[in-house]
Amino acid sequence: MNTKRHPRMTATATAAEFLMASRQCEIRNLEYFLQMGRLVQSVGNLVHGLQRERGATNLYLGSGCQRFARERTAMVKENDQLAATFRQALADIQEDLTTHPVSSPLLGHIASALHSLDQLPGLRQRVNDQEASVSEATEWFCDSIHQLITVVFEAAETVAEPSIAGLLVAMVHVMNGKEYCGQERAAGSAGFSSGHFDNALSRRMMHLVEAQERCFEVFVGFASEESLSLWQALRAHPRELEIERMRQMAVSVGPYKSLDKDMADRWFNLMTERMDDLKKIEDSVESAFHHRCVERYTEARHSLAHQETLLASLEQRHASTTPVLVVCDNGVEVGAADAWAGEGVGQQSGRSIFDLVQEQTRRLRQMSEELQSAKEALEDRRTQEKAVLLLMEHRNISNDEAHRLLRKLAMDQGKRLPEVARALVSMAGVLS
Amino acid sequence: MNTKRHPRMTATATAAEFLMASRQCEIRNLEYFLQMGRLVQSVGNLVHGLQRERGATNLYLGSGCQRFARERTAMVKENDQLAATFRQALADIQEDLTTHPVSSPLLGHIASALHSLDQLPGLRQRVNDQEASVSEATEWFCDSIHQLITVVFEAAETVAEPSIAGLLVAMVHVMNGKEYCGQERAAGSAGFSSGHFDNALSRRMMHLVEAQERCFEVFVGFASEESLSLWQALRAHPRELEIERMRQMAVSVGPYKSLDKDMADRWFNLMTERMDDLKKIEDSVESAFHHRCVERYTEARHSLAHQETLLASLEQRHASTTPVLVVCDNGVEVGAADAWAGEGVGQQSGRSIFDLVQEQTRRLRQMSEELQSAKEALEDRRTQEKAVLLLMEHRNISNDEAHRLLRKLAMDQGKRLPEVARALVSMAGVLS
Repeated sequence: MNTKRHPRMTATATAAEFLMASRQCEIRNLEYFLQMGRLVQSVGNLVHGLQRERGATNLYLGSGCQRFARERTAMVKENDQLAATFRQALADIQEDLTTHPVSSPLLGHIASALHSLDQLPGLRQRVNDQEASVSEATEWFCDSIHQLITVVFEAAETVAEPSIAGLLVAMVHVMNGKEYCGQERAAGSAGFSSGHFDNALSRRMMHLVEAQERCFEVFVGFASEESLSLWQALRAHPRELEIERMRQMAVSVGPYKSLDKDMADRWFNLMTERMDDLKKIEDSVESAFHHRCVERYTEARHSLAHQETLLASLEQRHASTTPVLVVCDNGVEVGAADAWAGEGVGQQSGRSIFDLVQEQTRRLRQMSEELQSAKEALEDRRTQEKAVLLLMEHRNISNDEAHRLLRKLAMDQGKRLPEVARALVSMAGVLS
Repeated sequence: MNTKRHPRMTATATAAEFLMASRQCEIRNLEYFLQMGRLVQSVGNLVHGLQRERGATNLYLGSGCQRFARERTAMVKENDQLAATFRQALADIQEDLTTHPVSSPLLGHIASALHSLDQLPGLRQRVNDQEASVSEATEWFCDSIHQLITVVFEAAETVAEPSIAGLLVAMVHVMNGKEYCGQERAAGSAGFSSGHFDNALSRRMMHLVEAQERCFEVFVGFASEESLSLWQALRAHPRELEIERMRQMAVSVGPYKSLDKDMADRWFNLMTERMDDLKKIEDSVESAFHHRCVERYTEARHSLAHQETLLASLEQRHASTTPVLVVCDNGVEVGAADAWAGEGVGQQSGRSIFDLVQEQTRRLRQMSEELQSAKEALEDRRTQEKAVLLLMEHRNISNDEAHRLLRKLAMDQGKRLPEVARALVSMAGVLS
């Protein structure tokens, strides 16, 4: 019955080999995310730089090139440096990414982000020449920042380790929330500096406040300890109350009353401070992410080594106590294989290869379950974006309006936003 | 403003590089699935062989080692060959798998499957010596086949190309359905050969019939054209009516009446023919899968080459028409960058790098949407398995009973099975 079969040791070695390969695969994945951490950090820094440059550019253009010229020049210089760091981090990870078969969408989004950045010098020149409008400049900055955040979002999609995935989910949501905060700063500045908020601008302010809140809610669910206490400190800061009062003014003043134009500077400074604090929270998540990757990497290397030792000792014991079984190809060997698998050898050492296989399977199953909630948070975000796009196309409305409509549907139906978004997306096929 | 910045051409080349990398990544993924196809095929063949050996082993043990001895010996020899082919396919793909960071669970399941196969010689010896019971042998075969099917299931999880993922979903469901059919063959054989069906056995028959139906429903949703017409031919075959009549007998005869024991052979032969036809359907899906991989691979290589040519011509035109821009680091260059991105160069050639980036992003988004339904089918299966495990643990009931309870819950609530399973799994955290 044993014709054509591989010799016993080879067959056993193969199960062990794949067990080791499964561990090695985890380690590779962690190495990859250690590199990915540097990329994410460089994205966060670049986004923050671009948000600052956006603010300065708007004030520069808004003041007829009178104000913020010096600050803007310094920021441009700094951002070129940050962009170079981002490109370097990309160059360092490029090969790894290309060999990673699921990263095709990530690579596509990186290409989009780089392409967007390539347009920056042209835009800046047009700003210098006063050829670009505030809205044109703002649009470019918003789009470019969105592309960069999408890179982090796509990176989070490729994580297989739950705690690491969770931290990237926290990261992408604090980044996104900070960007909404930046857009709110811009909207508020436009209103306060003109002394008026028309209905559209008030609605936009409300939308941005709500969008921020949603991002921070998700962030809180996945935040590291330190970043969470930084967040609580931010919330408790007296600045928040002042911001809240100014927001109330913005949404209730209406288009006819006029506001003190000096409030524009106050608003800009408050929101800038807030964004700087949000950047600190982001840095704290980044550092927790790095820390966690190193920790998991050390653990994984340790348990791989441990497993190697165990497997070697199992093989050695097998070879020394039952040498005949390794060379013979008959019934005796078969009996040994049975003992090996069930009790016999395994029982002697207290651990059998069966235990190791079981343990790895159990561990991976548990990880996949823990991963679920992080994946769901990402999926929710994706589904909401899809639902918003759908509404924009179907009803021919703006992004803001689509967000508002989605929230209204959720409120009317007493359901959670992601639920309504899912229902909408799943209906789309039927309705269109 | 241009200090510390990479020279213009490098920056542009980088966006193009990542665009190319995104394509190359897709191609690598397709290469990987061409290899994976061989692995899936070897799994399908081995599972079929083990199902046949399971049937022969049961009949051999059931007849006091009088019948099927010769057939069984031939099957053992054949299956050793099939197992060797499976191990070879694994060896060929092992390196690729290990460098594929998301395949850690797949590798773990392969280790489990191999470990299970390592016990086969021991089991066979115990069958030869008449030391193994029918139920012990059946349990090993069922477990080992389940492990092998799980390998294909996990492989399907790693696909990023929608049509390929769909075919693997079809594959895994036809495999699973065929396995339930094999288990139904065994349950029916036990009943017909003893002349009785007790309540537990009747219920098991019903469960296996329903489980098959559900698998084939999903299969139909993702089947290739040829496999679908094979499936329709199977359904229309007169054999199906005869099987249906015997099933009715099995679930309605009760423990007290007795059946003609000759029916056992008839049942076994009918179900064996059915399984052989199901194997043909499986082979047809396999061949569609292979065909589709080759097709997509050729397409992808073609469009990569096309894209390379386009990018090269864009670069060349850029270099030849605006040579000064490449070397200068001033405002003129910036203007060109702007033209490059927006209209200028792009408009001349009819295609700009912007178009290419947009196209790739659009294509990937569309693929990710199409992929959704395949992923959902896999997720449904995973969730149902989880829900069944939960019910088994919570209520201390058997796998069959848990399946039945789940179906009852769905029926009572007028919901789809996956919905009820999802609700159960999501409640588990709250309830335990």
